[in-house]
Amino acid sequence: MPIKPSIPKGTRDFSPKQVAQRQYIINTIRSVFELYGFEPIETPAMENMETLTGKYGEEGDKLLFKILNSGDFLSGADETMLKDSSKLASHIAEKGLRYDLTVPLARYVVMHRHEITFPFKRYQIQPVWRADRPQKGRYREFWQCDADVIGSDSIVNEAELLMIYDEVFRKFGIAVTIRVNHRDILDAISSQSLKGELSPTSLIRVLDQLDKAGVDEVMEMARRLGGGVQTESILPHLINDLARSSDNKAKFEAINTYINMSQQGLDSEARLRQLVVWVSNSKVQFDPTLGRGLDYYTGTVMEVTANDVQIGSLGGGGRYDNLTGVFGLEGVSGVGISFGLERIHDVMEELGLFENLETTSSRLLITWFDKDSFEAGWKLANELRSQGIACEIYPDEAKMSKQLKYADAKGFKHVIIIGDEELKSGNFTVKDMKTGEQVKMTRGEILATKPEK
Amino acid sequence: MPIKPSIPKGTRDFSPKQVAQRQYIINTIRSVFELYGFEPIETPAMENMETLTGKYGEEGDKLLFKILNSGDFLSGADETMLKDSSKLASHIAEKGLRYDLTVPLARYVVMHRHEITFPFKRYQIQPVWRADRPQKGRYREFWQCDADVIGSDSIVNEAELLMIYDEVFRKFGIAVTIRVNHRDILDAISSQSLKGELSPTSLIRVLDQLDKAGVDEVMEMARRLGGGVQTESILPHLINDLARSSDNKAKFEAINTYINMSQQGLDSEARLRQLVVWVSNSKVQFDPTLGRGLDYYTGTVMEVTANDVQIGSLGGGGRYDNLTGVFGLEGVSGVGISFGLERIHDVMEELGLFENLETTSSRLLITWFDKDSFEAGWKLANELRSQGIACEIYPDEAKMSKQLKYADAKGFKHVIIIGDEELKSGNFTVKDMKTGEQVKMTRGEILATKPEK
Repeated sequence: MPIKPSIPKGTRDFSPKQVAQRQYIINTIRSVFELYGFEPIETPAMENMETLTGKYGEEGDKLLFKILNSGDFLSGADETMLKDSSKLASHIAEKGLRYDLTVPLARYVVMHRHEITFPFKRYQIQPVWRADRPQKGRYREFWQCDADVIGSDSIVNEAELLMIYDEVFRKFGIAVTIRVNHRDILDAISSQSLKGELSPTSLIRVLDQLDKAGVDEVMEMARRLGGGVQTESILPHLINDLARSSDNKAKFEAINTYINMSQQGLDSEARLRQLVVWVSNSKVQFDPTLGRGLDYYTGTVMEVTANDVQIGSLGGGGRYDNLTGVFGLEGVSGVGISFGLERIHDVMEELGLFENLETTSSRLLITWFDKDSFEAGWKLANELRSQGIACEIYPDEAKMSKQLKYADAKGFKHVIIIGDEELKSGNFTVKDMKTGEQVKMTRGEILATKPEK
Repeated sequence: MPIKPSIPKGTRDFSPKQVAQRQYIINTIRSVFELYGFEPIETPAMENMETLTGKYGEEGDKLLFKILNSGDFLSGADETMLKDSSKLASHIAEKGLRYDLTVPLARYVVMHRHEITFPFKRYQIQPVWRADRPQKGRYREFWQCDADVIGSDSIVNEAELLMIYDEVFRKFGIAVTIRVNHRDILDAISSQSLKGELSPTSLIRVLDQLDKAGVDEVMEMARRLGGGVQTESILPHLINDLARSSDNKAKFEAINTYINMSQQGLDSEARLRQLVVWVSNSKVQFDPTLGRGLDYYTGTVMEVTANDVQIGSLGGGGRYDNLTGVFGLEGVSGVGISFGLERIHDVMEELGLFENLETTSSRLLITWFDKDSFEAGWKLANELRSQGIACEIYPDEAKMSKQLKYADAKGFKHVIIIGDEELKSGNFTVKDMKTGEQVKMTRGEILATKPEK
């Protein structure tokens, strides 16, 4: 009994059309990364479990795909292991699949630190795997496109990463909002204005509700998370002031009142002001409510959202102070951004931005009906290819109607018909598959015609 | 205690230089595939174990990387499983990593047969994983680059695949020998000339020794594998006749004597003769001793070897009659070729063919020393990038010597120096990092200079 083939849930096959679309996204991101001097690295799909474990929190550990050791993996397993999946797992699976590109980067930097020239501007575009519950837009195998600068504190890096965001989405034709904030600003509000009643993490959770809930609900949440007298009196004003500020200048002025007793807060504000000028006010928005995984980031944070599609963030990033500490290399600062390939793909599809994308490599099919016409077609195909023009010659002897059906289904733009009459006259018939129009051309004329892009 | 980072044995990190070299190989192969009308598909890294198991022989099954089920995988495991690794494995690992690109192709074709237009000309360039013992040139994660035509019996496909081999290696600058044979020719020799004393498989093993051993040793092996009276009298003549035949024409004539009682043998010879004419005699060699995994292939077989480096085959392929039968779709014939990325890389390295490859994306570094010179440099960097010219501006305030050291280590071709004098005069200093030569250029002049490729 042959088995009915299937693929693991949460994974996907990609057809030629889908590969072309995804390649277009990847190539665009890659070209902008390279325009800014970032260089590619690649790391193995498998990492040692000790590299991965404990880096993504308890939940993350559960989502790691583990690879069974080869051979007699049970050897050495004792009774307690055989009763407990998680104990046995660490005995029988020494390797796991890459969960993101950040931990592999940290490992790479530490392992190769003597070969690397710092600041290290690397990009990496590879798949990652997570044993997450699959749902719409969430897969167990998906791609990340990351760019990071390791070993430089300068906000020039932040400026360039924000400009990369701007340029990539401009190339895609996706209207986006790029927002930026600094952790010290949130720390300063928390410690100075709110007198520590709300921790920075709680403050983030509260502010994060602003675009979904009204002020009353937000204040209710603030109370639940520990907000007291100070929070009651200050937070509504802060929210109100920010809501009224429409541009960067107004937002910086508004926030200034709430952080001006913290030197760190003021310093980070000054850095953000400079950053926004360098990148240009029209391209990036200062958003003091932006938090973005504060546990991980320690400085600037950035996020990109689509203006015309509700789908969450298309990318994000920030500065982290101790990427490599866990692997024994302390004091290395980095800043990076990530693009989510799958969401960008979904947005482009929804906005119809793939419509003009050429997804078939070959636009020209040569058809024939007997030995002589095949010989003529074969010669023409070779001549076209030697000029770098992609084409196909139908491989089998078949009726013209079948060959044209193939051309239609595969989306060829033009078909060259070589029949009796064509062989005699030396004029091939070139059929436009869209309009149905047919013209006669000599071999020389065909070869001289570069197909339009 | 921080852990000392490492990667699983048999896997590799790739530095920017190595990624550039590998991308060059992949892009070259991809562009030639597309020139011949092949279209890309991609399949998941993980396949269900039932898709993979039993397709690669007993040895292959052992080399599959299995992925541990998530959650409480031991649930439902009984006593007998807990005593036997291989029994437990099939209970706790439902997925495995892709072992090659052929089985995923077969699964893909069957699953998507209603969306596919046949003949289906697909290519696939993705990593595969095998739990093989790592050694020089053999890795546990490596890439395959495959092109196959599914659903067409025509030898036009074989001709195009052979031309792809020729064109790809010509682009790389690697001198190769492309050899071709047909299984029916070996069958005819075995059954007609040798009266079945040697099975086709045994005959292959014997003939395969010819380039390493003398005729005596080869005959000794033939005897061990079952060769009798007929083999003793015929095989030495066959070997001798082939050795004397230097070109395709002579080889076809020589082999003809040994297969002319088998219509199938003669038919396949005629097809090969036609094939060699279509591809051109200068590009491909008929080699009646070529076997190449006969268990799998059922028609034409092809192989490419480097002329100037001893490393085994750089690629191979052939025709198979029943790719998809195991998944329930009978009667689909296919023919395909594969390129081995790792070996091609090793050969190119050994022959020095990467020497002229640009492996750094950015060739231009802008240096600065204070706020004013940074502003001028930043403006220039943005103007260059908006023209599509990749460049970097050094991100940190640092001594000129440190910035130049960075430029040198990263292999920049040119450095733009913006100092006091440059700011005053409006003439930037452009330093050629190879010759040390410095010239003065205005911003306009720099922008007008496209960096040479």
